[in-house]
Amino acid sequence: MNKSIIFYIIGWILNIEAALMIFPAICALIYGEKSGFAFLITIAACLLIGLPLSLRKPKSRIFFAKEGYITVALCWMSLSIMGALPFFISGQIPNYIDALFEIISGFTTTGSSILTDVEAMDYGMLLWRSLTHWIGGMGVLVFLLAIIPMSGGESIHFMRAESPGPSVEKLVPRIRATALLLYKIYLGMTLLQIVLLLIGGMPLFDALTITFGTAGTGGFAIKNTGIADYTRYQQTVITIFMFLFGINFNVYYLLLLRKFKDAFKSEELKWYVSIVAASIFLISLNTGGPKGFFAAIHPAAFQVSSIITTTGFATVDFNYWPTFSKVILVILMFIGACAGSTGGGMKVSRIVILIKTVRHEVSSLMHKRSVRVLKIDGKKIENETIRSIHVFFVAYILIFAASLLIVSLDNQDFTTSFTAVAATLNNIGPGLETVGPMGNFSAFSNLTKTVLMFDMLAGRLEIFPMLALINLVKSKIMSHKITLTR
Amino acid sequence: MNKSIIFYIIGWILNIEAALMIFPAICALIYGEKSGFAFLITIAACLLIGLPLSLRKPKSRIFFAKEGYITVALCWMSLSIMGALPFFISGQIPNYIDALFEIISGFTTTGSSILTDVEAMDYGMLLWRSLTHWIGGMGVLVFLLAIIPMSGGESIHFMRAESPGPSVEKLVPRIRATALLLYKIYLGMTLLQIVLLLIGGMPLFDALTITFGTAGTGGFAIKNTGIADYTRYQQTVITIFMFLFGINFNVYYLLLLRKFKDAFKSEELKWYVSIVAASIFLISLNTGGPKGFFAAIHPAAFQVSSIITTTGFATVDFNYWPTFSKVILVILMFIGACAGSTGGGMKVSRIVILIKTVRHEVSSLMHKRSVRVLKIDGKKIENETIRSIHVFFVAYILIFAASLLIVSLDNQDFTTSFTAVAATLNNIGPGLETVGPMGNFSAFSNLTKTVLMFDMLAGRLEIFPMLALINLVKSKIMSHKITLTR
Repeated sequence: MNKSIIFYIIGWILNIEAALMIFPAICALIYGEKSGFAFLITIAACLLIGLPLSLRKPKSRIFFAKEGYITVALCWMSLSIMGALPFFISGQIPNYIDALFEIISGFTTTGSSILTDVEAMDYGMLLWRSLTHWIGGMGVLVFLLAIIPMSGGESIHFMRAESPGPSVEKLVPRIRATALLLYKIYLGMTLLQIVLLLIGGMPLFDALTITFGTAGTGGFAIKNTGIADYTRYQQTVITIFMFLFGINFNVYYLLLLRKFKDAFKSEELKWYVSIVAASIFLISLNTGGPKGFFAAIHPAAFQVSSIITTTGFATVDFNYWPTFSKVILVILMFIGACAGSTGGGMKVSRIVILIKTVRHEVSSLMHKRSVRVLKIDGKKIENETIRSIHVFFVAYILIFAASLLIVSLDNQDFTTSFTAVAATLNNIGPGLETVGPMGNFSAFSNLTKTVLMFDMLAGRLEIFPMLALINLVKSKIMSHKITLTR
Repeated sequence: MNKSIIFYIIGWILNIEAALMIFPAICALIYGEKSGFAFLITIAACLLIGLPLSLRKPKSRIFFAKEGYITVALCWMSLSIMGALPFFISGQIPNYIDALFEIISGFTTTGSSILTDVEAMDYGMLLWRSLTHWIGGMGVLVFLLAIIPMSGGESIHFMRAESPGPSVEKLVPRIRATALLLYKIYLGMTLLQIVLLLIGGMPLFDALTITFGTAGTGGFAIKNTGIADYTRYQQTVITIFMFLFGINFNVYYLLLLRKFKDAFKSEELKWYVSIVAASIFLISLNTGGPKGFFAAIHPAAFQVSSIITTTGFATVDFNYWPTFSKVILVILMFIGACAGSTGGGMKVSRIVILIKTVRHEVSSLMHKRSVRVLKIDGKKIENETIRSIHVFFVAYILIFAASLLIVSLDNQDFTTSFTAVAATLNNIGPGLETVGPMGNFSAFSNLTKTVLMFDMLAGRLEIFPMLALINLVKSKIMSHKITLTR
């Protein structure tokens, strides 16, 4: 394990966090909030740790997948541990576990909150909370790639470990340029949404925070009623942008290159659009009936876009929807957005490949001799890709089951426990019942909150960095024990 | 597709069903029940269809996996369609869909019931209902293998499609002898349980029906209170035998051969025992607290054995247990019993292999160069086995999600819908809430009942025979359409 390079990168990440915290600090200054000092103290702390680490050049540039996974996991944990400090120091969230839960929920773009009254928070705090969605959406290490020179080895392992979905490889050759371009697209779309919301008469602060939540597919709202009190136009803008941020950014990249045909032939995109359309249709029918169908489309479209992209904003309390609509939402939670988007969940392309492997299995049972090849976008899917998606799926379900077991110790009802895990592991935000869109996660014990924090990180980093970290810690403890007993 | 041999085997199956129906007919005669005539009519109908089919020798003995899957699926459906007739003809279950649900639940050893008052049923009907558990537990085609001579091709494909779990291959060379031996062990253990229950003072009729339900891991009770009103001794006997029938029959086979070491070195057995012990411990602690721990062991042991073996008997209404204990039960539903037992679910060995693949993935991320081999019982697990278990797992979860979606149309609460599917796909019987151990499945619509019937068959036949049948029907319809449009 090349420790020096890991510490070097963590140092950089903390410096960047310090820089980003200037924005909420300025916001607090504008609103004359005393809590703003908490940002200054945290900035100092970040630099105090970050600067020495980033100045000591790593002895060796050796960087394998192993280092990649561990670095990504540790960076996200460092970001969160420091990022929670402003809430805690200012006393706006007096319990550090709660503050950590809130900030991990922010960075991982989950949007689950332990706040019972979000409107009681200071503006600076709310801005920081929403800004973490925006930062976490595209990924912090991808950002680092864009600004500091790194070797190919580092780059590819970061991209692989931090980017959602199974298909980063293609972008490798010009990885730094690509990382920059992705950020430009991200920034461009963010600005567009802010402008459109401002045109619709939304106050600047609301437009900023809500757009950060939309772009990162996070879902922290700044009102206790979520998005319910905004105008129909504003809700529509948010619906459209949630949908757009759930699409693979490769599509926008191809659009920029004017390769329109390539952009729209993506199989994942077709499935994504179909799933969204079918879900909106079924929920509108189920919640509105044939008579109220058209009236039901607007809230259905908002909620479907919000859940499949794993944003988690809400305009209605879908706890009161019929079970069928709720089950659609729960299934969408697991499907998640497209690979290469800012969204979470298992990703549409993985689900498509999983369905294809089952279909393939059945048809090869029936027609033994026809060896057909599994394809996506007209290209053969390698066996190694299929195998790793299968293992990912199994790991996902096992982590889900283990988390559900621990969370159920809190003795909330089955639906609450089940959807609390689903909402965090898939980085959605709200679940059903107690953790529904108008509820929150404050009722859970510290043990449950810790498990859900793990799930949020595991979901955002696609399981393996967190498992790798556990494996490392376990083997350290084991070797320590062996040393002791010798 | 070799149709002639498929019809030939279905013919045999119906003849066997006619023969088996003599037992409930005699029972009805003893109790002087008019409903007994329904058995005679059904016996006549079975023979009317079965005899001509079984007398026409198949033109060709060609028999591939394809024929195996389709035959197994069609045989189980034929058995059920005819088996439901006595309930329907006698008017004891006036709705044919309900009668079919009840008998599929019987044959698949699920034990989910649509009866609101089971004590209102005639004795002959109750015996038939419980007898189907016993028949379905070991499998009807395995029984056929034991009594009529078949080619190796037929045998292996039947065993593979009908026997639970991934490890039939070993028994191939002397398949007919093995099938006979398995039935002997099954019969021996069944008789032993009956005798032990009779010694405990249980009436003969109760002892017979409850033992059939235990042996087949079915779970139909003959009292509205389930097993709650029997004595502590009787409940203990049932607990032990449920546990025993959940073990791979290979273990008993090895014990008979006095290969004690081989019998107990099975990794699956160790996991099974550990999971059962841990679950009993945790549930006893959770339901009884530290004070009532020892008093809670008895019901906890009964329920854990009942659910992990997918039997589904109940001595208490675990709807009132804390959520943690309920979640343990739900997880046990999916784990299921050992491969090669009469139990359902995904099977312990599959879960063990799935966990091992994830562990293996994580450790190979961390130690790129050490190519370690996945082993079970000290032997390498072939890649093909791992692949097929992965595909099985994916298919399982996809069918689960699709079923949940349709079932939720009934607008029962989420927990009811979720556990209704879990309880049928895993062949358990009861779920939670409305379909809890003291509830039943009568409130569901015909659409939901149909989906759950499919799930029971898919669960019992381990998914692929039913998917193969759907694939066949679909391709027939497609080719029909093509012919029409030409």
